[in-house]
Amino acid sequence: MSGESGVSGGARRVLVLNGPNLGRLGSREPDVYGSTSYKGLVEECARLGAELGFDVEVRETNDEGELVRWLHEAADGALPVVINPGAFTHYSYAMRDAAAQRTAPLIEVHISNPYAREEFRHTSVIAAVASGTVAGFGIGSYRLALRALAEELAG
Amino acid sequence: MSGESGVSGGARRVLVLNGPNLGRLGSREPDVYGSTSYKGLVEECARLGAELGFDVEVRETNDEGELVRWLHEAADGALPVVINPGAFTHYSYAMRDAAAQRTAPLIEVHISNPYAREEFRHTSVIAAVASGTVAGFGIGSYRLALRALAEELAG
Amino acid sequence: MSGESGVSGGARRVLVLNGPNLGRLGSREPDVYGSTSYKGLVEECARLGAELGFDVEVRETNDEGELVRWLHEAADGALPVVINPGAFTHYSYAMRDAAAQRTAPLIEVHISNPYAREEFRHTSVIAAVASGTVAGFGIGSYRLALRALAEELAG
Amino acid sequence: MSGESGVSGGARRVLVLNGPNLGRLGSREPDVYGSTSYKGLVEECARLGAELGFDVEVRETNDEGELVRWLHEAADGALPVVINPGAFTHYSYAMRDAAAQRTAPLIEVHISNPYAREEFRHTSVIAAVASGTVAGFGIGSYRLALRALAEELAG
Amino acid sequence: MSGESGVSGGARRVLVLNGPNLGRLGSREPDVYGSTSYKGLVEECARLGAELGFDVEVRETNDEGELVRWLHEAADGALPVVINPGAFTHYSYAMRDAAAQRTAPLIEVHISNPYAREEFRHTSVIAAVASGTVAGFGIGSYRLALRALAEELAG
Amino acid sequence: MSGESGVSGGARRVLVLNGPNLGRLGSREPDVYGSTSYKGLVEECARLGAELGFDVEVRETNDEGELVRWLHEAADGALPVVINPGAFTHYSYAMRDAAAQRTAPLIEVHISNPYAREEFRHTSVIAAVASGTVAGFGIGSYRLALRALAEELAG
Amino acid sequence: MSGESGVSGGARRVLVLNGPNLGRLGSREPDVYGSTSYKGLVEECARLGAELGFDVEVRETNDEGELVRWLHEAADGALPVVINPGAFTHYSYAMRDAAAQRTAPLIEVHISNPYAREEFRHTSVIAAVASGTVAGFGIGSYRLALRALAEELAG
Amino acid sequence: MSGESGVSGGARRVLVLNGPNLGRLGSREPDVYGSTSYKGLVEECARLGAELGFDVEVRETNDEGELVRWLHEAADGALPVVINPGAFTHYSYAMRDAAAQRTAPLIEVHISNPYAREEFRHTSVIAAVASGTVAGFGIGSYRLALRALAEELAG
Amino acid sequence: MSGESGVSGGARRVLVLNGPNLGRLGSREPDVYGSTSYKGLVEECARLGAELGFDVEVRETNDEGELVRWLHEAADGALPVVINPGAFTHYSYAMRDAAAQRTAPLIEVHISNPYAREEFRHTSVIAAVASGTVAGFGIGSYRLALRALAEELAG
Amino acid sequence: MSGESGVSGGARRVLVLNGPNLGRLGSREPDVYGSTSYKGLVEECARLGAELGFDVEVRETNDEGELVRWLHEAADGALPVVINPGAFTHYSYAMRDAAAQRTAPLIEVHISNPYAREEFRHTSVIAAVASGTVAGFGIGSYRLALRALAEELAG
Amino acid sequence: MSGESGVSGGARRVLVLNGPNLGRLGSREPDVYGSTSYKGLVEECARLGAELGFDVEVRETNDEGELVRWLHEAADGALPVVINPGAFTHYSYAMRDAAAQRTAPLIEVHISNPYAREEFRHTSVIAAVASGTVAGFGIGSYRLALRALAEELAG
Amino acid sequence: MSGESGVSGGARRVLVLNGPNLGRLGSREPDVYGSTSYKGLVEECARLGAELGFDVEVRETNDEGELVRWLHEAADGALPVVINPGAFTHYSYAMRDAAAQRTAPLIEVHISNPYAREEFRHTSVIAAVASGTVAGFGIGSYRLALRALAEELAG
Repeated sequence: MSGESGVSGGARRVLVLNGPNLGRLGSREPDVYGSTSYKGLVEECARLGAELGFDVEVRETNDEGELVRWLHEAADGALPVVINPGAFTHYSYAMRDAAAQRTAPLIEVHISNPYAREEFRHTSVIAAVASGTVAGFGIGSYRLALRALAEELAG
Repeated sequence: MSGESGVSGGARRVLVLNGPNLGRLGSREPDVYGSTSYKGLVEECARLGAELGFDVEVRETNDEGELVRWLHEAADGALPVVINPGAFTHYSYAMRDAAAQRTAPLIEVHISNPYAREEFRHTSVIAAVASGTVAGFGIGSYRLALRALAEELAG
Repeated sequence: MSGESGVSGGARRVLVLNGPNLGRLGSREPDVYGSTSYKGLVEECARLGAELGFDVEVRETNDEGELVRWLHEAADGALPVVINPGAFTHYSYAMRDAAAQRTAPLIEVHISNPYAREEFRHTSVIAAVASGTVAGFGIGSYRLALRALAEELAG
Repeated sequence: MSGESGVSGGARRVLVLNGPNLGRLGSREPDVYGSTSYKGLVEECARLGAELGFDVEVRETNDEGELVRWLHEAADGALPVVINPGAFTHYSYAMRDAAAQRTAPLIEVHISNPYAREEFRHTSVIAAVASGTVAGFGIGSYRLALRALAEELAG
Repeated sequence: MSGESGVSGGARRVLVLNGPNLGRLGSREPDVYGSTSYKGLVEECARLGAELGFDVEVRETNDEGELVRWLHEAADGALPVVINPGAFTHYSYAMRDAAAQRTAPLIEVHISNPYAREEFRHTSVIAAVASGTVAGFGIGSYRLALRALAEELAG
Repeated sequence: MSGESGVSGGARRVLVLNGPNLGRLGSREPDVYGSTSYKGLVEECARLGAELGFDVEVRETNDEGELVRWLHEAADGALPVVINPGAFTHYSYAMRDAAAQRTAPLIEVHISNPYAREEFRHTSVIAAVASGTVAGFGIGSYRLALRALAEELAG
Repeated sequence: MSGESGVSGGARRVLVLNGPNLGRLGSREPDVYGSTSYKGLVEECARLGAELGFDVEVRETNDEGELVRWLHEAADGALPVVINPGAFTHYSYAMRDAAAQRTAPLIEVHISNPYAREEFRHTSVIAAVASGTVAGFGIGSYRLALRALAEELAG
Repeated sequence: MSGESGVSGGARRVLVLNGPNLGRLGSREPDVYGSTSYKGLVEECARLGAELGFDVEVRETNDEGELVRWLHEAADGALPVVINPGAFTHYSYAMRDAAAQRTAPLIEVHISNPYAREEFRHTSVIAAVASGTVAGFGIGSYRLALRALAEELAG
Repeated sequence: MSGESGVSGGARRVLVLNGPNLGRLGSREPDVYGSTSYKGLVEECARLGAELGFDVEVRETNDEGELVRWLHEAADGALPVVINPGAFTHYSYAMRDAAAQRTAPLIEVHISNPYAREEFRHTSVIAAVASGTVAGFGIGSYRLALRALAEELAG
Repeated sequence: MSGESGVSGGARRVLVLNGPNLGRLGSREPDVYGSTSYKGLVEECARLGAELGFDVEVRETNDEGELVRWLHEAADGALPVVINPGAFTHYSYAMRDAAAQRTAPLIEVHISNPYAREEFRHTSVIAAVASGTVAGFGIGSYRLALRALAEELAG
Repeated sequence: MSGESGVSGGARRVLVLNGPNLGRLGSREPDVYGSTSYKGLVEECARLGAELGFDVEVRETNDEGELVRWLHEAADGALPVVINPGAFTHYSYAMRDAAAQRTAPLIEVHISNPYAREEFRHTSVIAAVASGTVAGFGIGSYRLALRALAEELAG
Repeated sequence: MSGESGVSGGARRVLVLNGPNLGRLGSREPDVYGSTSYKGLVEECARLGAELGFDVEVRETNDEGELVRWLHEAADGALPVVINPGAFTHYSYAMRDAAAQRTAPLIEVHISNPYAREEFRHTSVIAAVASGTVAGFGIGSYRLALRALAEELAG
């Protein structure tokens, strides 16, 4: 039901969680989402994570329930989280309630700017419970989020 | 994908269904939800259920689809239901359509009062198809709902 | 201006307050409100109250101001309250301000589910200041509320 | 608390009920409400009522609760009602619930057109439960309503 | 394009104008609109008009433009008007602008109560420029409107 | 039904009217309303009134209808009014219509700032017909209002 | 005022009605409406109608009143209707009231998807009284509607 | 069904189209619309048109369908249009769709400023498909529109 | 987690996807959804599909995530889709984003007309990314959709 | 960029700040704002300020940024402020954020009642961060505000 | 803080005022605003102004306060004004209050049609106090406004 | 009117622009904005900028017009911009129009999360024209934005 792409090490574990349709990165609307594939995203996060001293696990799922469970896992393990909720951004209060239980920093990322997507009236339901938000820099949003984590944890 | 905590007997079966994040009871915001753990909730429902002549099965899930299937099971078996939809309360029309098929009493419960939670504008989408609603009494909401079932079934 | 139906004893006093039109119970839309008369309601509350160790006074009024004064009386005497605000549920901020002064549990009851009444857009203005809400069980809503009081006071 | 101006006879009793501020007719904004005094209104209703074979009682009150009780009295006695709810038109759901219990025709009247009063966004909450509405003819609205009653009862 | 049903005499001419679908009276939803046919409406208006000293012309049309022209005709001839705008009630600002030019009383009538028709959010756009409104009395609404005209013209 | 606390003299009479729950001043949420008791408010108004040459009568009621009648009394006697409508501020159009008949200055006061109370969306329905508004100064709001009256009457 | 393009036969008569601007098909925004001309639409409906055993009359008008009359004609003759209301879809309650009188199936068609046209907030006012809706298939929407009629009448 | 007031010549033809009630110019609310009669408007447009090298045809109608047909005629003949849609400004999407087909400049004019008319919430539905808008200059709005046409056609 | 009912052949594969509760067809509110069972729907689609040269696979699920995965499968295989999103119609942006990736026609079907269901304010979130919509013909909606596919693919 | 009218002394400094257009007092809409000139306002504030033991500086500006800087100056110097934000009342969140930093009482004044100005839907954005509000007394609003300051500082 | 580009003469002075970003004309989105530079606009206004007998001063500023001061200057000197408020159109109530003080004609111009700019929900806040509006003709909007001034002053 | 804190070098110039109240950093609500002073912010940006090869100029202003001019300067010089619009985020369309002219990356930063500030309903009006958004990391938001610039320019 989910694709887990973990890379392991002695470093602090960080979860990078992706919501619906994000596993399709690279095959979908490249003018909006850029040409990096999901595999590229996983590698990029692993590489920068290692550089910053993190053991990054990148996961993706189309199931709201699974995302909720992963957020529970993070809360139990005090794992920092970088999360791109995809379309759930706008209505999943279940995910929001789970995120609110976080015991470590949780950063919301978006590849493009969700506030500029005309078809949505609602803004992010997760923003209010996140540590911060990074949006609009393509794959770079993930890189900035990992750096923000490093700063915050070094804090 | 779900945790089923059934207790069995010759008594009438009753389903107590819990939506997303409720399996975490006890580890989450104790000032809002009280200090009873989910395990305590299961035992409490079993105990009072037995006293009232019910065979209570307490289940929880984070998946909307699973909740829908359980409601179908209840409709097929004419099982009374006590349901705490959690965050689904406010937007799961899928769960509502399934609840509307009920062939026995179905009571909506909430630990705290959802109408007082500032972040939600929407009220319960399930209230209109439920037999009744009990909200705001902590774990006591479940006890009152089981008593209401007993009264209603005694007719 | 009001009909007070008190029953007395050495037990803890509890006020059961009813708003506009509720004194007409039994003569009004029986398919919605059930066939129990107001007199039946008074007796039922007294009977169960006695069983639970309460000295229940059931009152009804069509006047917003009187309801406000009764809530003041309850606040001064630390009397627990079960209140069915009737149509005032939806717009009486005066009643709400009075209820907010409560010094003992106050439970909101409704015979049918006010959230299912199509003609009202507004939800209850009193819910946010009540201990809890019980709705949709006919006269049974009062019985559940008294039991909830007993549990809460036994604490 | 109220001014009752009954005229008696063997004819069918009809209640003409007036809400807040209407007893001040004649002393208030004559360009909007005309120059007829409340006393003139009472006499006019009595006169035309007699002509139509009615025993008309004209009452006025500033109290929502009293209006509710009068509507109960009308429901109990199957008395036809002509009602000018004044400012209650726009928000008294208590009055509306009482009017919904009517057992005889109930006609809503307004001296001026409430839908043209700029300061109100809300329309009449009573219109949906009334037999019909007459608005905008000054004192003539009452005369037309009495004639409508005569037609309907002759019906 | 329109059906004119004029009855002539030395009396003051009055126009009774009917908007879309009203010419079908009697063949349409009798539970809502009553069983009187359009022909019956014409005869009834003529009869009562004659009794009141009016020469009543009853017309109906499905065309907004024609209704506008008839209102111009009334304005030029200072003819009193009784108008049932039908569905145009809710959106024809063209008709409203024409009605605003009136040089004699203009009374809005409705067979049923438009404010009670659930499917419409908008109220009457013509009410603000009419002398008064009569709604909810079936064919009787027209009779009351003609009497109101007689009173107002007798003034 | 109301508590009238008049103090008399040869000076110009002024009514200080208080709406629902205000008679409880001192026993209610002192952090919001200050610690002055209602009795203190009465004395303070009398004292400053005397100093300014007024004969101040301070009254309080929980009844909308009584407030309406007091406003009629003020209109008939051309009495200046200082009014704290309490929760009626936000919805009593009956009180507003009565206030609109004023024949002397009428000043709206609030102990705290009603525009800052989060739970209310609606602003004051009385502001548009008042001479002016003073809000947010605790008991001082009444003192400022009396001074404003003195200035305006000296005017 | 209208262009009627009837084709006759012994088969069951069916009306295909087109609202404003649809007679211009082929000369207007071909990227939105396709390149088929109105003449082509008429022939296509006739051809498929004959194949299905219908005598199809295709008409178009820019007049709301004429559309209303054609719907009356259909109601009187129990004629099935395929209707493309064009811009009237969004605001003609007069057309809707006429359609509600239908005595045979009435199918709403649209060449493109009206729910996707950004400039309209309102959805179809006719959908609620139609048998069904077919939208988005260009001229194919008419073909599908005629087949749906055939199925329903065979039904 | 319409009044066409064409003046002819060898110059480029221009249509000046007027919607409902505009043919009554001069007899209607002179304080809002000025004292120029419709006849004066026709002559003024012809005079200035001739000066600018146009052959101006001024038409008026109360029928939405006729306005649509005239816009079709203009589209087919590539005729520039000056249009005052009157009350249709606010709701005729049929007229808007026809205007969108224009093959030459189309300028919207208003005698007064429709955005300042309090009773309308909606702005112009035609503005988005017009070349430009001129509003608030009385008859001068037409003169400015003709000059704008001359500039635009001169390119 | 899902019921797949595939029928195979050399023909072009088509997916017919059904959202929550649709697998219960036949056991649920027959007055709204007709008496055909889900099994009947599968057979009917297979039969007509074969006739049109399609290899139709009918599937149903109550899981939003599974529906998303099936839409991915269709996008990858360029499979045409007929989809009845059930209650997801109104809020599943996850499903919508997946549907937007389609590489072949995708037709939205509804058994009844979702725009006529009173309890929903929102219209379809999928309509804007679908090829077309067919609604209101019961099981016939699926037949029409398959024909529309045949036409479009023959295109 | 601003007109500062300071009067100096050993007394406590108080800033009286005026927003856009207020420097034009006396030359603008005298029926709304009274006939006192801005110069008169400055003198009046200085005079009463001296009487109350204040050294009052009256300033006015049309620039949002300058108002923000003056509020910073007041925050730094713990200077009490009387502020009439003029049109900024309704939309300057920059001014509001600056006012929120206040280290001394800050009183909002308005010459007329902004809640009664029909053209504004929005209420004051500054009220929530002010000590109190005085509105509707013309120049007297400033006098009352200075007295309120004196009371509050005397504490 | 502002760029004033005055041209002088014995003719009547006219102010042409431009709000934020308009000084950048020519360098900004030429497809929306045309290719004329700001300098070209100044020259064009001067040229046509001279032809019409005006001494035109064209100014531009990005400061709301400066625009307010210029409108005061115009009010004091009875100078006619042509104003393009740019983005202030939609929210500067300060500018609106200043414009309302005008003692000579004031015409609002827009280069493109602000009512067609999708991102704005609000219409012009200045339209209600302007003599008239000209929008959508590029630089031509200014020329038309100057001609309108000439007509109005020739009166 | 503004404080410019430029640091110079041979590196690429970058503007870091701050809107109203941000110059007060460190003296204002430290629980919300952190304890870093504005001076600290300037130094931090200079330091990291130098490290990334930028010549960073940090400026702050309370004036909307000045912010607009700085954005023009950036557009003319193709200077990358990091902008914290402060309260202007929510309503300055003038600033937004200026930002839309950018010829280099422009990144919106916020110290805290503006979408979580309860008192604002409106989201950022600048987000749609920015390259990206970074919010919620305190002073770290600026650091992340500078890194994002470096990545984007390295391209």
